Amino acid sequence: MPASESCYLGIDIGGSSIKAGIVTNDGRILQKRHASSALEDGLEAGLANLERISRELVVDAGITWDQVRAIGVAAPGTMDIPAGVVFHPFNLPGWKNLPLRDMVSQRFGKPAVLQNDANAAALGETWLGAGKNAGSLMFWTLGTGVGGGIVLDGKVWEGAHSHAAECGHIIIQEDGGPRSEFGIHGCVELYVGAKALVRRFREAIAAGRSSSLASDDASLTALAISQAAQSGDELSHDLILESAKYLAIGTVNVIHILNPEMVLVGGAMTFGQHTTELGRAFLEALRAEVKKRTFPITGERTVIDYASLGNEAGFIGAAACARIKYPV
Amino acid sequence: MPASESCYLGIDIGGSSIKAGIVTNDGRILQKRHASSALEDGLEAGLANLERISRELVVDAGITWDQVRAIGVAAPGTMDIPAGVVFHPFNLPGWKNLPLRDMVSQRFGKPAVLQNDANAAALGETWLGAGKNAGSLMFWTLGTGVGGGIVLDGKVWEGAHSHAAECGHIIIQEDGGPRSEFGIHGCVELYVGAKALVRRFREAIAAGRSSSLASDDASLTALAISQAAQSGDELSHDLILESAKYLAIGTVNVIHILNPEMVLVGGAMTFGQHTTELGRAFLEALRAEVKKRTFPITGERTVIDYASLGNEAGFIGAAACARIKYPV
Repeated sequence: MPASESCYLGIDIGGSSIKAGIVTNDGRILQKRHASSALEDGLEAGLANLERISRELVVDAGITWDQVRAIGVAAPGTMDIPAGVVFHPFNLPGWKNLPLRDMVSQRFGKPAVLQNDANAAALGETWLGAGKNAGSLMFWTLGTGVGGGIVLDGKVWEGAHSHAAECGHIIIQEDGGPRSEFGIHGCVELYVGAKALVRRFREAIAAGRSSSLASDDASLTALAISQAAQSGDELSHDLILESAKYLAIGTVNVIHILNPEMVLVGGAMTFGQHTTELGRAFLEALRAEVKKRTFPITGERTVIDYASLGNEAGFIGAAACARIKYPV
Repeated sequence: MPASESCYLGIDIGGSSIKAGIVTNDGRILQKRHASSALEDGLEAGLANLERISRELVVDAGITWDQVRAIGVAAPGTMDIPAGVVFHPFNLPGWKNLPLRDMVSQRFGKPAVLQNDANAAALGETWLGAGKNAGSLMFWTLGTGVGGGIVLDGKVWEGAHSHAAECGHIIIQEDGGPRSEFGIHGCVELYVGAKALVRRFREAIAAGRSSSLASDDASLTALAISQAAQSGDELSHDLILESAKYLAIGTVNVIHILNPEMVLVGGAMTFGQHTTELGRAFLEALRAEVKKRTFPITGERTVIDYASLGNEAGFIGAAACARIKYPV
C-alpha cells in the first residue's frame, strides 16, 4: 500500500481475549489477530500485551507506525463513552472507573476513542458488513446474554449517558415473566441467549417435556441444546424457535421506537446462521413474528438478517469509531 | 417587529380542529388561533379555511406575507414524511395518499414541510417548551390513545419509513395482556390513555371492586374517572396510578433503547399536571417505577417531567420543522 495511506488500529478487548486489526481508511483489513488479553496478570501486563500485539500488527501489515492515524478501543460493560472511562473493567481486581482511552492514547502516542463493544460491532457491520451503508441499524448480539448496538446516520447512537442500546433489558413481559437477580422482570435477555436457553430447557423438563438430552447434567450448555436441536430433538428445536419469538417482540419494540432501516442478529447464539436448517428456521421465525406484530409498512420494509462479520465486527467497528472522530 | 424578520407559519391539523400560529425565527409566537378544521365539508373547503385563517394570522401578527419564510403542517396518522404524503387523511371520504405538503405549498405559494403531529409536538417542546435545548428527548402524548415523538440532536427522528416513535405500540405484556382490535397484544396504549382507563375501570368493577362512580353508565369517560379520583374515589385513583406504572415500563424500554436526556409527558390525560395532587402523584409514580427498572445511571439522570406547551406544541413544532428545512 502507498506509504502515505492512513490506517486505523481497532482493538476489541474482552475479559479473556482480544481481537485487533489494522483497517485502512477505505475499509480494507490489512492484518488481524485474535489473542489472549493477558488481563489475568493485571492491567499493566494487559496493556503491555496490547502494545506488543499492536506493534506486531503494524509490522505484519507492512505499514509504519506513523500511518496509524488513531486507535479505537471497544470494551464490554457500562462506561462513560465521551470521557473514555470504563466503569467496571474486565473484573480487574482493584479497578473502577478506568480511564482506558487516555491510558491507551498515552501509551501508544496516538489519539484514541473508546466505545462499548456491541455498539462498535453495530458500526462495524454498517461499515463493512451486512449493514453496509444502512442509514439506520439495530444490531442484536446473542451470546451468554443479549446486547445491542444502534447506528443512526452513520454514527453510533450512544445516548445521553452512554447507555443506549441496552436492548437485552427491553421488558416484554412485566407480569409473570422470569425474574433476574437484578430485580428486572421479563426482559429479552431472560428469554433469549445461552443462559436463558439452558434455564428454559430445565423448566420445560421440570414441566414434563421430554428430550434426548440429559437435563440433570449440571454442565448442560446452550451449545449442547442447539446441537440436539440440529439432531432432531424436538424440545430443543421448539425452545430455540420460541427464542426467536421473544427476540421478535424485543425487535418490534425497537421498530416502534426507532423504525430502523435494518435489524441484524449476530453473536454465538445464531446457530450457524444461513448455513444450517436451524439457523434459517430461527431467522424465518424471527421475521414472521415481527411481521405479525408491527405495522404493514415496517413489517414489509424492515430488513432483518444475520450480521456477517462474526467476532471481527468489534475491532472493525472500533477502527470505524476512530475513523469518524479522527478523519484523515 | 422589523419588516425584514422572517417568520414561520405552523399549522396543526386534526380531524375536527386546527391550531395555527406565526412564530418568528428566534421563537416568539406573534399570533395563534384555534379554529374548526371545516373538513366535514371536504378537502377544498378545508384548504380554503386554512388559507383564510393563515392570511388573517399574518395580518393580525403585523407582518407581511413575504415575511413568511415557510409553512410547517402537522397531521395525525401514518404518512410518508419525506414525500409529504398523508396515507389516510382525517377520515376524508374518498381520500387516500393525500399529497398534503405540496397542496399547501402550491396553494400558499410558500415552501412547506409535513410532519406527524406527535413528532412535531416533541420538536415544539424541544424548541420552546419543557425540553428546551435537550440534546435528545422522547415525548409521550396521552389522549384517547397514546402517541410519541422523538427528537435527537435537535431534529425529529422520523425513522427509515416515517414510522418512528409509535410508542403506544411498545409491547410490555406479550402473554396474557389486553388485546387490541388490530391483533397487537399487551402494548402501552392498551393500558394507558383514556380508552384504556375506561376499559380497565369496567374490568375492575366486573372483578368486584367498588367505586362512587356508576360503572354501568355507557357514557362513562376517562374525564369522569379522573374527576372521581380527585374527589377521593379510591378505585379511580388506583387505576390512574397503575397507568403510571404501565407508562413507566414503556418509558424504561425507550430508555434502554435510546437513552434520551429527557422524557416528557403531555396530552389531555395528564390530570392537571403539576397543579393537582393527582397530576403530581401520577408523575411521582412514573418516576419511581422507571427508577425501579432501569440502570442506576439512567434512573438518576433521565429527566422525566410534564410537557409545557399544551395543545400549542404541535403548531410550534410544525413551524420548527419548517425552520430547520428552510432556514433564513
